[in-house]
Amino acid sequence: MKCTKCSQTAIIDLPQHNVAYCEGHFNEYFLNRVQKAIKTYSMVEENDRIVVALSGGKDSVSLWHALIKLGYACDAVFLDIGMGKPKLEELQEMGKKFNSKLFIYDARADLFGLDIPKIAKFLKKPTCSVCGNVRRYLMNKFAVENNYDVIATGHNLDDEVSFLLGNVLNWQIGYLTRQSPTLLKTHDKFVKKVKPLVLLTEKETYAYALLNELPFSGESCPFSKGASSLLYKKVLNEIELVQPGTKQRFYSGAMKVWNSKTEVELSECKVCGYPTTEEVCSFCRMRERLKDALGKQAI
Amino acid sequence: MKCTKCSQTAIIDLPQHNVAYCEGHFNEYFLNRVQKAIKTYSMVEENDRIVVALSGGKDSVSLWHALIKLGYACDAVFLDIGMGKPKLEELQEMGKKFNSKLFIYDARADLFGLDIPKIAKFLKKPTCSVCGNVRRYLMNKFAVENNYDVIATGHNLDDEVSFLLGNVLNWQIGYLTRQSPTLLKTHDKFVKKVKPLVLLTEKETYAYALLNELPFSGESCPFSKGASSLLYKKVLNEIELVQPGTKQRFYSGAMKVWNSKTEVELSECKVCGYPTTEEVCSFCRMRERLKDALGKQAI
Repeated sequence: MKCTKCSQTAIIDLPQHNVAYCEGHFNEYFLNRVQKAIKTYSMVEENDRIVVALSGGKDSVSLWHALIKLGYACDAVFLDIGMGKPKLEELQEMGKKFNSKLFIYDARADLFGLDIPKIAKFLKKPTCSVCGNVRRYLMNKFAVENNYDVIATGHNLDDEVSFLLGNVLNWQIGYLTRQSPTLLKTHDKFVKKVKPLVLLTEKETYAYALLNELPFSGESCPFSKGASSLLYKKVLNEIELVQPGTKQRFYSGAMKVWNSKTEVELSECKVCGYPTTEEVCSFCRMRERLKDALGKQAI
Repeated sequence: MKCTKCSQTAIIDLPQHNVAYCEGHFNEYFLNRVQKAIKTYSMVEENDRIVVALSGGKDSVSLWHALIKLGYACDAVFLDIGMGKPKLEELQEMGKKFNSKLFIYDARADLFGLDIPKIAKFLKKPTCSVCGNVRRYLMNKFAVENNYDVIATGHNLDDEVSFLLGNVLNWQIGYLTRQSPTLLKTHDKFVKKVKPLVLLTEKETYAYALLNELPFSGESCPFSKGASSLLYKKVLNEIELVQPGTKQRFYSGAMKVWNSKTEVELSECKVCGYPTTEEVCSFCRMRERLKDALGKQAI
């Protein structure tokens, strides 16, 4: 297999685009796709300061690297909530090399010293829902307090179509309209959220991380076992194998039908002052329940 | 495994409803589901004369049998277009037993003596698209000429969710809004079309046909090999296995979101006078192209 752009041996084939690339042209393609997503979905404006929500996996590490390579003013933050083991020292080295900061935010102080699995157990809630709640809240808080304009997350095309399929199968229209690649800033304390990897698959972000020798962690989250999202990814891969391009068509079509730039109407949480769609935000409600649970535990 | 309704041994389990049934209670359940679909989607009005579009497979034969058992005034018609080999003599016996007519409509006279696979070859069109076009047109014509009020087809839940998934993956909104279980009569020569098996799966219609010893043909269409619909059915079955009830939720949700009773705006075909959304209907356009092709073939 030859590279579609030059005569070198290809190292990856992308049937959805009917092309194959050598290492150099794959890297070029990858950065072009990130740039295309940013333009198509109006993710970043001039002089915006971006912070990447870094989990340490292939997606967020590739995203950080790609944004730096594309010349964006961009730092990264790792939220330490007792989930995952990123290669922090090597990641810090990488940041230094590119003159980009990596913050490590020990969030356990905000969580009564507990980590996510323990909180989930206390509250009898699914780990993924607690983890998502905490991440969304604290990432936004970090970005507000440190004057970032945009939070970039590493969601790739497979993540998005898997989420989309789940929502379509259950016709959760509310979620569908909120699953946009760009969530606009609609409140002083609500930072714009963007997903610049939505035009790239898991296979592509993995290849990018490997080829560029990025210090990512190969571990998958131990709590994802048996998750619906993995089932949906599996069946979408089966369809993609027979009908290359289905994922991309499914995603782009949905964004046209349902809205790609979402404005969420927000008021202020009565407890913390951060934006919410309800009276008290879900993070504070969780903390309240946690306080009660801990109290009971102490007795 | 015991029947959920009595103490007999169950012969079928239906995880999507969290029940298992013996033969008698399964038959009762099956007829109830057909009746429920008819009521929910306003398929039949009092004194309506129904004609079942009979292919001879498990679905249409079960449908005919169920409608008779439910007491509807109902006949059946088999369109002979060179596709499939139904058990016509036994079906005619079954009709006689229940005082319901079975018509055999030799459609090849309308098609220059050709059968569907030959027409598809001549026109370089997919067999399924030619077959669908011919069936829709001639079934409607038959019903109009013989004063039936409703055409009932054997589409089951698996057919419908597979079609739905294809349309959602490609966001073919036009098809989505027309994929309703009830297509209303919107023209003198356009008979109402209904799908009373939409609340029952393939497994259930198959079980009903077997248990009632119905004379159905077990052959699947030789042209369906490699069809997208089979791929979609396969992946939906994988999801259903892990998340029972997904198909039903997906279907009912779609019908709520997209409309369950569709009114199609129709004018009259300039060639045959039958209703169409265009100037000349797709059946007449096909016949024109066929005439040309046959002319060229003769030279």
